[in-house]
Formats: sequence, structure tokens, C-alpha cells
Amino acid sequence: MLGNSVCKDPKLVEANDFLFSGLHIAGNTTNVVGSRVTPVFASQLRGLNTLGISMACVDIAPWGVNSPHSHPRATEICTVLEGTLEVGFITSNPENRHFCKVLHKGDVFVFLPIGLIHYQRNIGYNNVVAIAALSSQNPGAITIGNAVFGATPEIASEVLIMAFQLDKNAINYLQSKF
Amino acid sequence: MLGNSVCKDPKLVEANDFLFSGLHIAGNTTNVVGSRVTPVFASQLRGLNTLGISMACVDIAPWGVNSPHSHPRATEICTVLEGTLEVGFITSNPENRHFCKVLHKGDVFVFLPIGLIHYQRNIGYNNVVAIAALSSQNPGAITIGNAVFGATPEIASEVLIMAFQLDKNAINYLQSKF
Amino acid sequence: MLGNSVCKDPKLVEANDFLFSGLHIAGNTTNVVGSRVTPVFASQLRGLNTLGISMACVDIAPWGVNSPHSHPRATEICTVLEGTLEVGFITSNPENRHFCKVLHKGDVFVFLPIGLIHYQRNIGYNNVVAIAALSSQNPGAITIGNAVFGATPEIASEVLIMAFQLDKNAINYLQSKF
Amino acid sequence: MLGNSVCKDPKLVEANDFLFSGLHIAGNTTNVVGSRVTPVFASQLRGLNTLGISMACVDIAPWGVNSPHSHPRATEICTVLEGTLEVGFITSNPENRHFCKVLHKGDVFVFLPIGLIHYQRNIGYNNVVAIAALSSQNPGAITIGNAVFGATPEIASEVLIMAFQLDKNAINYLQSKF
Amino acid sequence: MLGNSVCKDPKLVEANDFLFSGLHIAGNTTNVVGSRVTPVFASQLRGLNTLGISMACVDIAPWGVNSPHSHPRATEICTVLEGTLEVGFITSNPENRHFCKVLHKGDVFVFLPIGLIHYQRNIGYNNVVAIAALSSQNPGAITIGNAVFGATPEIASEVLIMAFQLDKNAINYLQSKF
Amino acid sequence: MLGNSVCKDPKLVEANDFLFSGLHIAGNTTNVVGSRVTPVFASQLRGLNTLGISMACVDIAPWGVNSPHSHPRATEICTVLEGTLEVGFITSNPENRHFCKVLHKGDVFVFLPIGLIHYQRNIGYNNVVAIAALSSQNPGAITIGNAVFGATPEIASEVLIMAFQLDKNAINYLQSKF
Repeated sequence: MLGNSVCKDPKLVEANDFLFSGLHIAGNTTNVVGSRVTPVFASQLRGLNTLGISMACVDIAPWGVNSPHSHPRATEICTVLEGTLEVGFITSNPENRHFCKVLHKGDVFVFLPIGLIHYQRNIGYNNVVAIAALSSQNPGAITIGNAVFGATPEIASEVLIMAFQLDKNAINYLQSKF
Repeated sequence: MLGNSVCKDPKLVEANDFLFSGLHIAGNTTNVVGSRVTPVFASQLRGLNTLGISMACVDIAPWGVNSPHSHPRATEICTVLEGTLEVGFITSNPENRHFCKVLHKGDVFVFLPIGLIHYQRNIGYNNVVAIAALSSQNPGAITIGNAVFGATPEIASEVLIMAFQLDKNAINYLQSKF
Repeated sequence: MLGNSVCKDPKLVEANDFLFSGLHIAGNTTNVVGSRVTPVFASQLRGLNTLGISMACVDIAPWGVNSPHSHPRATEICTVLEGTLEVGFITSNPENRHFCKVLHKGDVFVFLPIGLIHYQRNIGYNNVVAIAALSSQNPGAITIGNAVFGATPEIASEVLIMAFQLDKNAINYLQSKF
Repeated sequence: MLGNSVCKDPKLVEANDFLFSGLHIAGNTTNVVGSRVTPVFASQLRGLNTLGISMACVDIAPWGVNSPHSHPRATEICTVLEGTLEVGFITSNPENRHFCKVLHKGDVFVFLPIGLIHYQRNIGYNNVVAIAALSSQNPGAITIGNAVFGATPEIASEVLIMAFQLDKNAINYLQSKF
Repeated sequence: MLGNSVCKDPKLVEANDFLFSGLHIAGNTTNVVGSRVTPVFASQLRGLNTLGISMACVDIAPWGVNSPHSHPRATEICTVLEGTLEVGFITSNPENRHFCKVLHKGDVFVFLPIGLIHYQRNIGYNNVVAIAALSSQNPGAITIGNAVFGATPEIASEVLIMAFQLDKNAINYLQSKF
Repeated sequence: MLGNSVCKDPKLVEANDFLFSGLHIAGNTTNVVGSRVTPVFASQLRGLNTLGISMACVDIAPWGVNSPHSHPRATEICTVLEGTLEVGFITSNPENRHFCKVLHKGDVFVFLPIGLIHYQRNIGYNNVVAIAALSSQNPGAITIGNAVFGATPEIASEVLIMAFQLDKNAINYLQSKF
């Protein structure tokens, strides 16, 4: 049930099929979380199909956040080009251990292993620009808030009330936000 | 950095190394979510090491919930032995589409693909008993609430305030629950 | 040359694509081996395609047998829901070591590794019901007797005479049975 | 639980670690099946470890047989150097279709896919010499007769009586042969 | 962007789909390198598709060479049927260690691991015939000289001048040869 | 025979195990090819072990070259941070097709597929800085010139004379350069 794009006839392939332009253009961070991810996945760069690699640029405004999320089909490595970036990931049950680090220009950090929840936060006074690479051409991204509180159709509030130990008003408020 | 257990000398292996007993014993569901998962992973059944398969029994009290969670290294299939079970999973960004179904005895459902957030809820008046199988001997489990609000050490509240659009009191409340 | 079914357009997928019903219905065991396997493979549950997991229910009448067979593309784990079940598997050349165990309700056993010959036998006075899970959506099954003595067209009797050290009458008898 | 041999320190590796000698020496075929396989697997050629490839030489006396067997972890391709060789393989349930071919010098045949039962028979008046290659350094080999009738300890005769529809005397006879 | 051939309907498959004939016919070695490789890859033997194995025959005239090349998608094992063959492979940066061995009839050698540059040379007075097996049905082959000096269109001479520390005349000469 | 480093006890792992610093420091390009690659592979960043991803920074002085090379275990994607960069790769036999492109700041290019020979050249008046990501934590790198003409011990000149159609003096000259 995977939606892989159909392959191009090898004879018709040209160098432009392997090119994506504009990753250096600052992403628009005027949104509630103050961040923007510009992906270069197989959807954006068709030549990546079957290659098991992709790239992304992460722009975060001062004090903005790349919300907790996971990539179901990829591990991730990133390097900071500009700014001061807090990064963290949390391990599986039962430890739920939180590994956290402040990165500066030239630092490289790896989020591991596959499928863990991780996040990034700008903790400086300037924009953060970071380049990330992922071990799949189609890594997927699950933003926790969106998946849990913003699913379509909504998850029954009874599930969320019990899972998060919140009352119905709080859950309704959360669902209205996403 | 994986903690695979060391393999046993093949000459010393015996049939008991491939056996786990007691999966039929009802799990204790007297907890805040009213559910209990009894895993038969490589940690419980050493013979599963390297085999890419495992099993679990899920017991859910009436109106209990197996909270939203993901398995970073496995897909999952389950069948209901007793009771009436609502199951659901949510796809990745940007759709966050929610697939949901009510299962009865003998129904088989597959949560797909790898790494997606899914949950189960007892919507009947009797206990639910379900058998699940996973495509890894070490599937891992990330309970969203525990990972996001119960990490050790805690994720900075500024990250969660922005990611979930909640005020500091609400985040502190959530962190106190997990 | 594999006959994978074509994938469905992701936009048209619905929850029923992930559902199979009726695994709890007792399989008809009125046959020469007194057993019946009800598979939930990709052929029965299309949503399993590419997921690397599947399930089956095994019903065995008292003293019936699930004949020696192998799954060329999967390992297998099973749990007993009812009855008393002898299970066994035999390792490769040159040891051909036979691991054998009697299972009761709630026991979980793993047949390993991939491709080995294994069998199950009801050694109690009641029906056996067991749930098996396999590490492929398309595990395949080779029943040894059917493949060796019931192939279409038949394997030359000279091959079988020499391989099994039987005379031509015995081979002909066996071939007539399958 | 796999018994992979420990890797050698890369600094101490020398060209002889990648060499096996004597594959051209005719195997001794004075046995009940009139055939001999000389394997060059990781057990014989340590340098093959992790490489996913291996080789074997098959010698078959006139009218000898390489008995029905399967390789649980490899596909196989072979070419005939000398003689006239019948080869065949049987597909999975429910078809159990038998593909069979007579090969002459220079013919190449592929047994597919992984894990299927296949055999070879010399149908000429001279020795057969064939070179086979397998897609694993540790392909394993399950000779059906040995695994089913020659396991240690023996499979209960009740299982075999029912599975092969033979009487107890016939099963005992077969078990005495292996 | 891989050009895998479309699979045949399983019902229409016949034994001839798994057969290639003529591997024993001596390849024509009257060319500048005095060697010829006869491949039995998926392009030549359609039944190999998806199987992860292939075969080739290498004929080398006295003092001929199978030029330095690599297989981007396969490891290789070979055995000498006739003649005296020098084989070698070179490891990655920074060691670039050269493993080299003289093989005689019946010797088996493995070129490892995947993707390394290797070569073969006839160092005897008679033809060499060797059978190679590769761990992919579509291993690919990159002959270094052809790829570097014979690409279409040509690599800019400035790249090659700097990379090989040769003057423009030497590079032009090399490019004219390939 | 792979030299994977031993895994660290998960309990002792800390965030610094996932950090590498200094990728922004310009590599020293005062060498014959005018380029320098700073790798962040598992050898430099232990936390990458088993993750299937790595990163590198490529610095190239004006008119410098990152010589033709291949990565036997990885595909590669790169993005230009500064300068004007010509990139190219050459496909396998028999086409040896050369795909070539001039990249500017923000361009992303993918070298595909695994194991192909590729190169990079600064064709501007300023330094080039590019970030590359590879689909293995241990991708390996084979610089063609070093492997063919700089192996230890040397490849016999007879092999290279024939393979590259050069005379002995030219080969000796090349071998003296590497």
C-alpha cells in the first residue's frame, strides 16, 4: 500500500532529475511554532527514489520550536549552520530517557535510533539554520501534537482523556488547537 | 548501540529456550488506563533473538484504553479473543488521517505501516483480550504521553508550551501526571 | 517473478482494508490429517502487503496432525488457546536435531529459524486451537508430503526410490496418496 | 542464536583467507544416493563471512541422485561442467507445481525462489559435475528424508503415519534407513 | 529509477524461464585486453529477477587481463576451471591494500567486500576459464578505464589532469583509447 | 570480517556520544588536488553505529577537485553552502553515461545509485563548501587513482599496461605519483 512514484525510463533520465534548487532560501517561520522545515525528499527530488537518503533544511526563529515528532522510516543526523540549537530525543518505554544537547555552529548531532520522538528549539537571539539528513528517501514525519490532537477524524475524547489524564475540556481545547 | 543479548552456544540450546508460558493469564488492569500488555519479546523469550517476530497479549478492562503509542521497529497485527475493541491509527503529516474500526471476536486488524501512532479502547461491558503479533523480536514501544510528558529529565516546558499551545500550568500538570 | 498484488491508491484506502473477520470460527478438520489452517496472509487481507507480518489460526482435532512443513519466507511464533499440542522442528544437515515440546494453554513457542521443517500434533482429548504469527505477509507453505509425493507433474520415481530408499511399489503408493 | 564465527582483525587478514583449494577434485560418490556435494561455505572459507555468496561442486555418479532438499537461507544457480543432469524444483502449496529440466554441458539453471524443495539426478552414462552458487555464505541444507525420517530424536511415528498416510511398519522402515 | 524488468504472470512460467544455455562456449578474446566475460544476469536469464544471485564465465587468453572493475551491487566468488589466474582486489581509503593471489584449477577465491576494485590476469601459457558467481541478479560492472576515460560525454580534462596528475596530452591520449 | 566497533553499554550512553563538533572549520586544501573532505562517519562519531547515515563537509579551493571516487556502501546527497561546484557521476557498463551539473548555493544533488564513480570540481573563483550525507555510517571511499595506481603492494604493471593501454613508462610514472 506504499505510494512509491513510478520510475522514469532510464534512457530518458537527465542530470536535472537529480537536482533540487533553493535549499538556502530561508523558510517562512511566521507561524505558531516559529519554525519551518524545507524537505528534499523523493516527493521534491524524484531522483532520490529507492536511494535511501534525503535532506532537509530547518529554519527556526529565536525561541521557536520544531515540535516533538518522529520519522517512522529513517534515522536523522543534523548540523548547525547558524545559531544556537537545543536538540533532544526520548528513548522507548520503560525508561523514556531524555538525551538533550545545546548545539552551536559546526556541531553535528544524531537522533537515534529510528522512530524515536525528538525535537529542536532555538535558544539563541538569532535565527537557527540547520541541515538534516535522513536515511530514507521517504522518511515520513509524525508531529505528535498533530497526530494525537489533530487527527481527521478526531480520536474519541474518551481515549485521550484516559491516555493523558486530562478532563474533557482540556482535551477539547487541545483538539481545537490542532 | 543496540543492546542485543549475546547468543547462546547452539550446542547447548534446548526446546525450553523457545518456550514462554502464561500468556493466557489475565493481565492486571487495575491502573489509571485500565489496560495491561504482556509482551513476549526477545527480553522474555530469548529464542526470539534475530527472528523478526514477537507476540503480546493485551488485556483491557471495560472502557479502559491502551494509550496512543508507536513501535519504532515493527508493524503489528492483532486478533480479538474476547470483547469489543475499538482500534485506530493515524497516518503521518500532512494528512494525519485517522483509521478507526470496532473489532469483535475473531476480527483481525493490522496497524500500518511501521512507526505510526495507534491505540486500542475497550468499548464493551466485558474485558477485552487480544493477541497481537509484531514484526520484530525487539519492537520497542513509545507511549506518547510518557515520552512527551514523562521523560527523564523532563523536556523543557518552553518546548511543550509552544508545541502543544498550552500554558505553563497545563504543561506542569501534565508533567506531574506522567 | 513474484506475484505481489498491485497497491491500492492511498487516497482510496479505508479502515476495512485492514480488517479480516472470522478467525475465531473453528476450521473444518474432517480430513485425513485432522487439521485445518486458516491463514490471514496478504491474499486474505490486502492491507498486509509489504508489512512483513501475518497471522493464522490452527485447528487440530484430537490426535490430528499439522503435517511436517516449512515456510520459505517466514519465521513463526504460536500460542495455544485451547488443548494440548505437541510441536517440533528439525534443524538442518548434518545434525537434523529435533526440538520437541508439549504446549498447554497460554504457552508460546517459536519455530526457528526461517525455512526449517516443523509440525504440530494434538495429543489431548479435545480440539486444539492455536494462533500463529509469521514474519512475512506472504510466508508460503511447503507441506513436505505434498511437495515430494504430490507434485504436478510427479517427480520421477527413480529420484524418490533412491532418495528415500524405498522400492517402486512403496513410492507409487505414496504418490497415489497425495 | 546464530553461530556466526567471530571476525578476524582486519589488520591480520591476508589473501589466503579468501582462498579455498581443491574444488576440482571429484567427490566420493560411493554412497547410497551416488552423489556428493563439496561445499565452499563460510565454514570452509572464512573470508565469505557476511558476504552473501557461496559455491559448491556437485558430483553425481551415473543414475545417482542429489536427494530432494531445500536451502532455508539461499537461492541457487548451477551450471553443468560434465554429463547430463535432470534438475527439478516444486513450488509451495497449494499448487506444488514441479518444474523439471534436463541440462547439458554449459546449461545454467536457477532453483527459485528461496527455500523450495529441489533435486538433481544424473540421467546419463557418465559422471555429472556441476558448479552451484548460493546467495548466502551460510545457506543451510535440509535433506527432506534425513530431516523427516532421520531426526534425532525421532519424530513420533504417529505424526509421520498421519502425515504420509503410511502404516507403522513402513514408517519404522523409513526411520531405520536414515 | 532502477530498470527492473516486469515480472511474468506466475501461471505462465515454465521451466525454460529458468534456463540459459551455452556458458561452456569459449568467449571471443580477440580484443585489446585478451578477455571476455559471458554474463548470466537477469538481462540474460529472466528467471533470476529478484533472486539475488547470478553467474558468469570468464575467458582470458594467455597474458590477457580482465581489467580493474567493480560491481556496485554484488560480492563475487570465482573458481578456476582451466589455467593459471592471478586475481587481486584493493581495499578502500586510506589503506588501498592490495590482496593478490595466483589461482590454479579448483581454487576458489572471493573478492570482498561489495564494491571494491578487482582484476584478473592470465599468467600462464594456456587459456583461463573461470566461473564466477555474484550476489545480485543485476550486479552491474564498472570498468575503471571506461568509466573514467571513456565516459559519454567525456569528463572535463581538468578534472582528470588534477586527479591523476597527468598533463593534458596524456589525458587526451587516454580518452582517445576508451 | 567487518571491523564494526563494539557497542557501548546502553546505560552508560550520554548525549555527548551523539555529538561531533567542528564541521564548520574550513578543511586544509593545500594539497595536490586542492580539496579536503571532513568525514563524520562512525569512526568519528561513535553514536552513528548501526544507524545507516553519516555526513561530511567538502572544502574545495578554486579549481580544485574532489577526485573520481566511489562509496561501496552508500548513496550520497549533497548541498552547496558556498561557491560554484561542478558535480558528475558515470553509470555502469556498457553505457558509461556521464551525468554532469553545475551547482550553486542552495542546490541539492544526488549521486546515484550506490557504488558509482563520481567527482566534484570547483569551477568558481571562491572556495566551495558543501555538505554531503551518505546512506551508511561506514560508507567507505575508493579514490580511483589511489586504488589503481597507489595500491600497496602495487598492482603488476602488466595489468595496468593492458587495462589502460599505456606503456610501461607511463604506468611507472602514474604509480610514482600515488
